[in-house]
Amino acid sequence: MNDTEVKATAAGMAAAPTAPLRIGIAGLGTVGGGVLRLLRDNAALIAARAGRRIEIAAVSARDRTRDRGVSLEGVRWHENAGALAEDRDVDAVVELIGGAGDPAFSLVMRSLEGGRAVVTANKALLAQHGAAIAETAERYGAPIAFEAAVAGGIPVIKALREGLAANRIRRVAGILNGTCNYILTAMHERGREFGEVLSEAQRLGYAEADPSFDIDGIDAAHKLAILAALAFGRPVRFADVHVEGIRHVSALDIAFARELGYRVKLLGIAHRSAAGIESRVHPCLVPEHASLARVDGVNNAVVAEGDFVGRVMFEGRGAGAGPTASAVVADLIDLARGRHVPVWGASASALSAVPSVPMTDYVGTYYLRLMVLDRPGVIADVAGALRDSGVSLASMLQHGRAPGDAVPVVLVTHETREAQMRAALVAIERLESVLERPSLIRIEFA
Amino acid sequence: MNDTEVKATAAGMAAAPTAPLRIGIAGLGTVGGGVLRLLRDNAALIAARAGRRIEIAAVSARDRTRDRGVSLEGVRWHENAGALAEDRDVDAVVELIGGAGDPAFSLVMRSLEGGRAVVTANKALLAQHGAAIAETAERYGAPIAFEAAVAGGIPVIKALREGLAANRIRRVAGILNGTCNYILTAMHERGREFGEVLSEAQRLGYAEADPSFDIDGIDAAHKLAILAALAFGRPVRFADVHVEGIRHVSALDIAFARELGYRVKLLGIAHRSAAGIESRVHPCLVPEHASLARVDGVNNAVVAEGDFVGRVMFEGRGAGAGPTASAVVADLIDLARGRHVPVWGASASALSAVPSVPMTDYVGTYYLRLMVLDRPGVIADVAGALRDSGVSLASMLQHGRAPGDAVPVVLVTHETREAQMRAALVAIERLESVLERPSLIRIEFA
Repeated sequence: MNDTEVKATAAGMAAAPTAPLRIGIAGLGTVGGGVLRLLRDNAALIAARAGRRIEIAAVSARDRTRDRGVSLEGVRWHENAGALAEDRDVDAVVELIGGAGDPAFSLVMRSLEGGRAVVTANKALLAQHGAAIAETAERYGAPIAFEAAVAGGIPVIKALREGLAANRIRRVAGILNGTCNYILTAMHERGREFGEVLSEAQRLGYAEADPSFDIDGIDAAHKLAILAALAFGRPVRFADVHVEGIRHVSALDIAFARELGYRVKLLGIAHRSAAGIESRVHPCLVPEHASLARVDGVNNAVVAEGDFVGRVMFEGRGAGAGPTASAVVADLIDLARGRHVPVWGASASALSAVPSVPMTDYVGTYYLRLMVLDRPGVIADVAGALRDSGVSLASMLQHGRAPGDAVPVVLVTHETREAQMRAALVAIERLESVLERPSLIRIEFA
Repeated sequence: MNDTEVKATAAGMAAAPTAPLRIGIAGLGTVGGGVLRLLRDNAALIAARAGRRIEIAAVSARDRTRDRGVSLEGVRWHENAGALAEDRDVDAVVELIGGAGDPAFSLVMRSLEGGRAVVTANKALLAQHGAAIAETAERYGAPIAFEAAVAGGIPVIKALREGLAANRIRRVAGILNGTCNYILTAMHERGREFGEVLSEAQRLGYAEADPSFDIDGIDAAHKLAILAALAFGRPVRFADVHVEGIRHVSALDIAFARELGYRVKLLGIAHRSAAGIESRVHPCLVPEHASLARVDGVNNAVVAEGDFVGRVMFEGRGAGAGPTASAVVADLIDLARGRHVPVWGASASALSAVPSVPMTDYVGTYYLRLMVLDRPGVIADVAGALRDSGVSLASMLQHGRAPGDAVPVVLVTHETREAQMRAALVAIERLESVLERPSLIRIEFA
């Protein structure tokens, strides 16, 4: 009986189990340290919300001697992270190693195969092996939670998978990488070039020594692949995400964007149309009055558009020890209370098989900035190349004159198919009077 | 065993029950109609997310003949809403009648007493009877969910109670009433007076014929009382919320606010300090660069500040059939999956008994606008009254001159205790050269 089921579970809620939830943490870097501190600092509050204590039973980390500011006395150390998957006194494994490969991948898979709950912050792992992980979790009846994998402390996975679960989502879009948003914000505020701002971000600790994972859009693409799977109830398909980073955004483009009433943002966007699901990460011109245009510095934000709820936005810190630990421990509280959700929101058999739309079929408006020789006929040549590819111009902007010298020209198109835009670009690059590689930025939320 | 528990529940998740969740809906007005349409339009998607079908078994509404655009053939009608509490073929009662009194109150209590799950959108009921409801739900092991009670479709209750559950919350603040935000936004954009904009809002359906519940801040106070209970893990205390509405906000104040770099917003704010919890609803001056200042029109938004997560903001439509139905059905999906949360986030015995701070102990900065006779010595008199109550002035603004006539003067204070500010106001109102009741607006997020 249905009625009895609801009652039984609810009774379980009222009389919560008093045995602690015993966890094993793999990886004690920045995030792991944050989780240790949060579990210690807010222990009483967490126990009240979880209905029982959350106890660190075991850990595994590379460096046993490092001071993490929290005593680990009485906690079992495993030399190999993999041993946590076999530890019978661990109820839930917290994977904070990172990376799509081993040891993270095998730790997660072996934990699930043993029917052990998993909490992870690992977006690369979920983006690349999400289908296998979901299948394994379902087969072995083991829950896996990953709120920390997207947008740090903002509970956007919970919002999409539970809070907006009744909606058909049309679009989910977000600022998913704090490093890129910091750099673009600084470029806007100070008119400086990408390279300078990147160096500064590295000095301040907002960018890694090897920043390519962030600035080339890979990190945002991992997160977008996860969001798209949740929003559209489809197995994760990272390979189908079109990815461009922000290396080629210049101070000149930022200045033109401002003049036209836009801000340049790196967005991850997944959109459902009749043809399927389009997912892409690239710099965008966003009108300055749009909500996402206002999200500055290292903040992240996600916008979701549902058929009944309308447009909802979530904003906050997307990285760092505190926000990420907040998400990891929220997942642990859910586990302790017995609140589980299928990995992509529905069981594998109920997921959708809707196809991906290739980027060449994308339709939108474009900002195109060229450096051309200032001489008669250049604009006619460029306009001709656009016309020959079926691209229609909405506006053109050129400041100042420098006869015989290089000048920037900005063109904004009407709605155009990506394939046509690319064909036009090839033709434009061949023009003798076009001096540099054109800068192309798609316009969103206009 | 712990481990077994986690596994057992997770297995329950994988092999979700196939029997439908049978619901009984009380109240088929705007929101009820939205719930009917949502359950019909997105039935397949909802079943996939819920792991089983959600079936409307019974309804109760005043008007049986009204066309709600959805067939109710085969659905049992109860003349009395109360009968839903006794219907043995109903697993969950959806209360959409509204109002803190009967029939809503007794329907909810009797349903819970029968161990029946309840979903409600009724903020007045929860704000005024939240303690009794929580106690009953816990005693009878019956879950109650109320995502739709605050901020419509924005899953802010889920975010506070689950997503941010590991955090000690310092402050929660929000734009909680779309009618007030619509009116204040229109006053800002068009420089018009409150009364004119209210009439327009009534014509457009954004304000009720009797608007006092909204514009006097009661509705926002109900929602704030609920948010405060969730944020601080304390039983709801509606009577402790200080409430002021927006009737007295004038076009002149809006104009001065703009000039000073602020926007006027009706905020609900709950703040935890060493002395206890302060909760209040009143018009505020918010710096125009603050996130909440940008939330315009009928939108709602909630900001929460946690010790680990930092500041998080949620924004979206706070009312209307679609957004509210989205929240109600999300609650039903949680119920269908067996995901329950104690009413205020922890069991009654684990709730905090931290006291409320009276409004007279509030400390903040104030905007004070006077209409004074333009003659020598007036400012000296006003400044003297402030000094005598220990209120320190930060700035003063007066435009133009009209010797012997009325002119507005704006004063901004340094941090001041409310009791002192009130004493100063009494003295200022007694001054012969002060011609109208002073306008006092607190400054927030500065």
